[in-house]
Amino acid sequence: MITVVRFGHRKGRDTRITTHVGLTARAFGADRFVLAGSDDRTPLRTLEKVTEKWGGPFETVGVDKWRPFLRKRKGKLVHLTMYGLPLPRVLPQIRKDWETGGELMVFVGAEKVPPDVYEMADYNVAVGSQPHSEVAALAVFLDRLTEGRLLEDSSRFKGAELRLTPCARGKLKAPREPV
Amino acid sequence: MITVVRFGHRKGRDTRITTHVGLTARAFGADRFVLAGSDDRTPLRTLEKVTEKWGGPFETVGVDKWRPFLRKRKGKLVHLTMYGLPLPRVLPQIRKDWETGGELMVFVGAEKVPPDVYEMADYNVAVGSQPHSEVAALAVFLDRLTEGRLLEDSSRFKGAELRLTPCARGKLKAPREPV
Repeated sequence: MITVVRFGHRKGRDTRITTHVGLTARAFGADRFVLAGSDDRTPLRTLEKVTEKWGGPFETVGVDKWRPFLRKRKGKLVHLTMYGLPLPRVLPQIRKDWETGGELMVFVGAEKVPPDVYEMADYNVAVGSQPHSEVAALAVFLDRLTEGRLLEDSSRFKGAELRLTPCARGKLKAPREPV
Repeated sequence: MITVVRFGHRKGRDTRITTHVGLTARAFGADRFVLAGSDDRTPLRTLEKVTEKWGGPFETVGVDKWRPFLRKRKGKLVHLTMYGLPLPRVLPQIRKDWETGGELMVFVGAEKVPPDVYEMADYNVAVGSQPHSEVAALAVFLDRLTEGRLLEDSSRFKGAELRLTPCARGKLKAPREPV
């Protein structure tokens, strides 16, 4: 089980990036997306619509009291930050925790993350040591953690209204046949 | 040599996503970022500032006549689209082209990509077959293409004003010592 927690979302300014974080979570194998400390529900609504159309299960939740929420977790907390330890150095241990320890919580901040998150986290992890994007960091973290297996496996999504057929040119999209 | 071409950028609405695409291009090993068919130069200015602070070389260019620009390319054109062929199926051939054929051009669209791009592309490539994010798609494409080598190698950036020291808790950032 993987939960992605998005923190520091600012209404308007961050709407699209937060939505991309959520879509990336879903596509790369997370089970749940938590928007923490924001009363803007726009990204959650968008994610729900995508899940309706393209299949689930994928849970989307807004959480106000995010500190107790993080503290009550049942598995390890991974905080993605460019200031952390290099991903290759910590990935084997994180994978082991995940495979044996139930839920993995992946914390993705917007601009400013309070210092106590660095303390609460079991792992502060840097996806490269250059500034880039929380969307990119989350995608590559999940892709490497799952060794690309979940990204390619669309059969795990049930109840989709649409399916794609891979094609060399153009677009092939059709209503999914009843299973 | 890798060039990332961002197309379909809409001023305002796409500014932050386009900037994330550019930063991801730089961090994951591209040499050049092209903003195609938009007169909004805001993302290019942001990328230039990041390159000044964190090192280069990383070229940023705005191109208006993007069709002739794509046609005059010297290597293969990869179009990232969820409608394309699965990445694992085409990656070995793309890597071979890249290693032997000079420039690789990676085309990343916003919402609507004109049909002739699908025809012009040597490869239409899907990073998973679920909707997610062009930032995530680009990151994972470049990460897999380069097998993570360029992401971890910050020594390729010269003239940086800042450097990071990986750390388990908190932030370590310092002016880079003269080399």
